[in-house]
Amino acid sequence: MTRRDSVVALSGGIGGVKLALGLQGACAPGRLTVVVNTGDDFEHLGLAISPDVDTTLYTLCGLANAQLGWGRDGETWSFMTELERLGGEAWFRLGDKDLAVHVERTRRLAAGEPLSEVVADFGRRFGLATRVLPMTDDRVRTTVETVEGTLSFQRYFVARRCEPCVTAIRYEGAERARPTPAALRALGEPDLAAVVICPSNPYLSIDPILAIPGWRSALQSSRVPVVAVSPLIGGEAVKGPTAKIMRELRLEVSPLTVARHYAGIIGGFVLDEVDAELAARLDVPVRVAPTLMRTLADKERLAREVLAFAGTLRGAR
Amino acid sequence: MTRRDSVVALSGGIGGVKLALGLQGACAPGRLTVVVNTGDDFEHLGLAISPDVDTTLYTLCGLANAQLGWGRDGETWSFMTELERLGGEAWFRLGDKDLAVHVERTRRLAAGEPLSEVVADFGRRFGLATRVLPMTDDRVRTTVETVEGTLSFQRYFVARRCEPCVTAIRYEGAERARPTPAALRALGEPDLAAVVICPSNPYLSIDPILAIPGWRSALQSSRVPVVAVSPLIGGEAVKGPTAKIMRELRLEVSPLTVARHYAGIIGGFVLDEVDAELAARLDVPVRVAPTLMRTLADKERLAREVLAFAGTLRGAR
Repeated sequence: MTRRDSVVALSGGIGGVKLALGLQGACAPGRLTVVVNTGDDFEHLGLAISPDVDTTLYTLCGLANAQLGWGRDGETWSFMTELERLGGEAWFRLGDKDLAVHVERTRRLAAGEPLSEVVADFGRRFGLATRVLPMTDDRVRTTVETVEGTLSFQRYFVARRCEPCVTAIRYEGAERARPTPAALRALGEPDLAAVVICPSNPYLSIDPILAIPGWRSALQSSRVPVVAVSPLIGGEAVKGPTAKIMRELRLEVSPLTVARHYAGIIGGFVLDEVDAELAARLDVPVRVAPTLMRTLADKERLAREVLAFAGTLRGAR
Repeated sequence: MTRRDSVVALSGGIGGVKLALGLQGACAPGRLTVVVNTGDDFEHLGLAISPDVDTTLYTLCGLANAQLGWGRDGETWSFMTELERLGGEAWFRLGDKDLAVHVERTRRLAAGEPLSEVVADFGRRFGLATRVLPMTDDRVRTTVETVEGTLSFQRYFVARRCEPCVTAIRYEGAERARPTPAALRALGEPDLAAVVICPSNPYLSIDPILAIPGWRSALQSSRVPVVAVSPLIGGEAVKGPTAKIMRELRLEVSPLTVARHYAGIIGGFVLDEVDAELAARLDVPVRVAPTLMRTLADKERLAREVLAFAGTLRGAR
């Protein structure tokens, strides 16, 4: 019998990647594939920027800026300071180290390389064993309809700090986009143990992935359990605008809403301990666990719990 | 009678801009226009880079890196270090501050702005009273034919450190290029006192300007004296490959060769003191002066000498 030890995780940026980092520690080296949202990719200053992919790369490589919560460790800001002096657009902060990734990615994409190959090569050069893959090599752009009008994702998220009230979210290009081939191959590997939906914002980070028809069908037909971890604890998101957006979209701010949102895809749901009493109201198997991840130990402990849960679901099939 | 106090200087990068800095000190604020070679402009990492224009801007603004002799003062190198780590092209060094100029220029050119307007705006933002203008808003590319084959200028100059033996130099696009309109207007101003050809490399820095038909004819029909300063002192260039290239092109390495090269354009030539005995062999008026510029005082002294010389030539008309 094949030893099942490979894992595919779906993730957005900062929130989800905490669990991805835990999974990286819980898996044998090279056995984790992280599929990352690219709906918040955008072109800025002529550069192709992939915020969630970069946050994932930096975090898994140990190169992330712990103070800021985004960008690179030991970053310098000479470029940004000068750009402001020249009257350039400064609302999206680009550090000097970070900029190397954007410039080199832009150059390679312009030369015809798919994003997934560029990202894979960056990972190798950073010494990363985990595979980080954009959800697609095609163009998908998350667009936020608000009471102030239509905003591109980064305008909404960074420039407007998620302040405008959201009325709808669209994933432009998702209908025609195809999953990254290497990611689909990872889903089909005989040693696959589980697919984990990280506790990212379901609407901004996971839905862009699920809006790609090939991803939705691949997950629906997955031979191994798909397990989602609740991004809400006691009716609030640990970080970011998940709860605010749910209220604006007139959704009940509850892990139940998230679990039901993933209906048809997930075979199990992980609830935080404070939400334990909700378990009875879900019609998928539930594991209750501490989901707040402050330390690396927290992340790895939750990751092992999630994988153990997936193991029981696999056994039950 | 109009007070003649405005000056137009033609210059390349490091060598010529020393005199441009002297002229800036010798002229009243805002009375100097520096027309800069753009034959060594190139596209690198997807960025539009104008080395001589930037060297001129940085030097005249007091923002140049005195240690390096190129680039920005107080520069940091985070971008370059990371780019090398990512396997990017590292032969052309781009500092973090410097990069802001390239990224913002590239963005504005892509948006349809002429280079001259972008550069003028950068100058204003840096607080510069002197007008710095690229020789043209059109594309001209200096190409060096060598015994090792054809090299783009920066490949020859930076990557190959001027080592390959030069057989010819071409200025691609120059025939169809037009002078920057604002620079032609500066040449036509009633208060113009002199046109100065700075002691730049005649073949790599000044000839790209003269290869533009509109520039050659404008200088030939100038109402004020065009005065060139020898880039050679005692048969050698102070810096750079001028003498080496002249030998390779089988030209006598002498200020006489340079003066004759500018025949039909210049109305006067400035020789260094060590070359004083050559004066008799030139058929244009000559001023002998110390042309080695180490300090700002040297530069301003030479500038005043050149302008005084032009004044005598104007009076003699």
